Amino acid sequence: MDKRYAILGCGALGGLYGGMLARAGREVHFLLHSDYQHVADRGLQIESPWGDFTLAKVNAHQSAATLPPCDVTIVGLKTTNNHLLPKLLPPPTRGGGVVLVLQNGLGVEADSAAIVGADRVLGGCCFLCSNKIGPGHVRHLDFGRIVFGEFEQTGSGVSQRARDICAELVAAGIDAEATDDLRMARWRKLMWNITFNGLSVVLDASTKELVDDPNALALCESVVREVHGAAAACGVQIPPQMIDKTIENTRQMVPYDSSMRLDYSHRRPMELESIFGNPLRAAADCGASMPRVEMLYRPQRFKDASNLSGR
Amino acid sequence: MDKRYAILGCGALGGLYGGMLARAGREVHFLLHSDYQHVADRGLQIESPWGDFTLAKVNAHQSAATLPPCDVTIVGLKTTNNHLLPKLLPPPTRGGGVVLVLQNGLGVEADSAAIVGADRVLGGCCFLCSNKIGPGHVRHLDFGRIVFGEFEQTGSGVSQRARDICAELVAAGIDAEATDDLRMARWRKLMWNITFNGLSVVLDASTKELVDDPNALALCESVVREVHGAAAACGVQIPPQMIDKTIENTRQMVPYDSSMRLDYSHRRPMELESIFGNPLRAAADCGASMPRVEMLYRPQRFKDASNLSGR
Repeated sequence: MDKRYAILGCGALGGLYGGMLARAGREVHFLLHSDYQHVADRGLQIESPWGDFTLAKVNAHQSAATLPPCDVTIVGLKTTNNHLLPKLLPPPTRGGGVVLVLQNGLGVEADSAAIVGADRVLGGCCFLCSNKIGPGHVRHLDFGRIVFGEFEQTGSGVSQRARDICAELVAAGIDAEATDDLRMARWRKLMWNITFNGLSVVLDASTKELVDDPNALALCESVVREVHGAAAACGVQIPPQMIDKTIENTRQMVPYDSSMRLDYSHRRPMELESIFGNPLRAAADCGASMPRVEMLYRPQRFKDASNLSGR
Repeated sequence: MDKRYAILGCGALGGLYGGMLARAGREVHFLLHSDYQHVADRGLQIESPWGDFTLAKVNAHQSAATLPPCDVTIVGLKTTNNHLLPKLLPPPTRGGGVVLVLQNGLGVEADSAAIVGADRVLGGCCFLCSNKIGPGHVRHLDFGRIVFGEFEQTGSGVSQRARDICAELVAAGIDAEATDDLRMARWRKLMWNITFNGLSVVLDASTKELVDDPNALALCESVVREVHGAAAACGVQIPPQMIDKTIENTRQMVPYDSSMRLDYSHRRPMELESIFGNPLRAAADCGASMPRVEMLYRPQRFKDASNLSGR
């Protein structure tokens, strides 16, 4: 029953969840890039409200080629690195294992599905505040739930393999939930991601500054509401109380720099297509426009280009 | 027939137009604040594609109390200084003269009308690229047309007094046009002001950068179009070719920092209510929403507050 895991992208997300699985005794293989030597020598250090821990020795890989066949390959890369997947995914999935795509946004499973086949892909949303604060050093701040399910849902009900993976995640202390409605999870997460990633960059503000200022708060609410409406137009009926809850959760959250704001301030590419572009196109396909979201997407495309060109 | 003029606010606009009237031999009284001593001692210096000139001696006033009764009082202050009008307007208008409000935005004549009566107020839009670059020193860059008319238009046709003022402005070399439809002029100008003031601050970009980038350009077009639609909802039918022309004029324009971007970067209050708040409320009264404009207004309210508090 015990599964073997590969973690592609050992950052704030992959480091935390992979580390917890390893701590629980699962065989976990981490693919690392800049942190490889540090982690190979000294392991992983995790700070978390769920309990701090250190793994002195982990299976660290510098190249995907050395990854063994795994039952579950967790994709924790930024979507802006998805062009690397054709090289990274085949080795760990060569034994027929599945891929669990824990990336932000909409339509993010498509790149993995093109490589291993849609029937071997699950997707999940992480409601997680976590930052990588140094090589092999993750600080998990708040929340942490993973909601995941089949990319190609056939019929209703949670698939057996999703149940099995969920059981191992929960046994490792992770707040995981398997769903038979991944699209619902994706759009619910988008209500937060679009709003707070977008406004934190456009307004150069933390989540706390956004919910504390009456003008910014009114903006947040109007954007959350617009995404909720677009989801409904796409046939995803999110309970309306989730609108207020999205704001309220953020108010309760520790003051936090969204991942997109961090990417922007470190002059890294922002995940604009997965978080903004794909939902805008999906909504348009269903006849719904999201003018407020466009007013976040396009300014950020402009800022992204200036930012990366070092203007 | 020759009129006596008072110029309240001797900046990029008041300095240029007042200077041209004075050069043409009109009696012009300038109310000055920080530049008073410089202008009293050394006059005004104007650079303009219409011809550079210097006025060694001008009627400079440090206080509104010393202004004589004038036939026309031109309000060239920023609307963020309209709280000063109850002190500034009564002296020059005490002989029954009219007020010509050359301020940006919508509903900007109301403050003057409350003081002298709506029947003594005219309003105008300036399609002008001009900056004050030093004390008493104005650099007019491009365009310059004033379109003005009665605040309370009674019947159709241009009023006689608007014709008379227009004749003097034109005689002074100013590109002026009197209209019997001030609302049309106001909304036409808003198509530019909302779009390019708003986006230049939100995107931290010059007008040239905005029209040169495909994402920013698409945003500009969508905002111009939204304002055009709101005007129509308010009964102001602007010819649709003005949508493209607004963009095209900006493309032809010298690279320019909008007045709002200059205000923001100098940590001065931005004219958010006259340019964004009042049009949004006017549109809402006519049942039209402008979500894109809201997405410029509220972020700027947020940025304005941070900016002025020195965050």
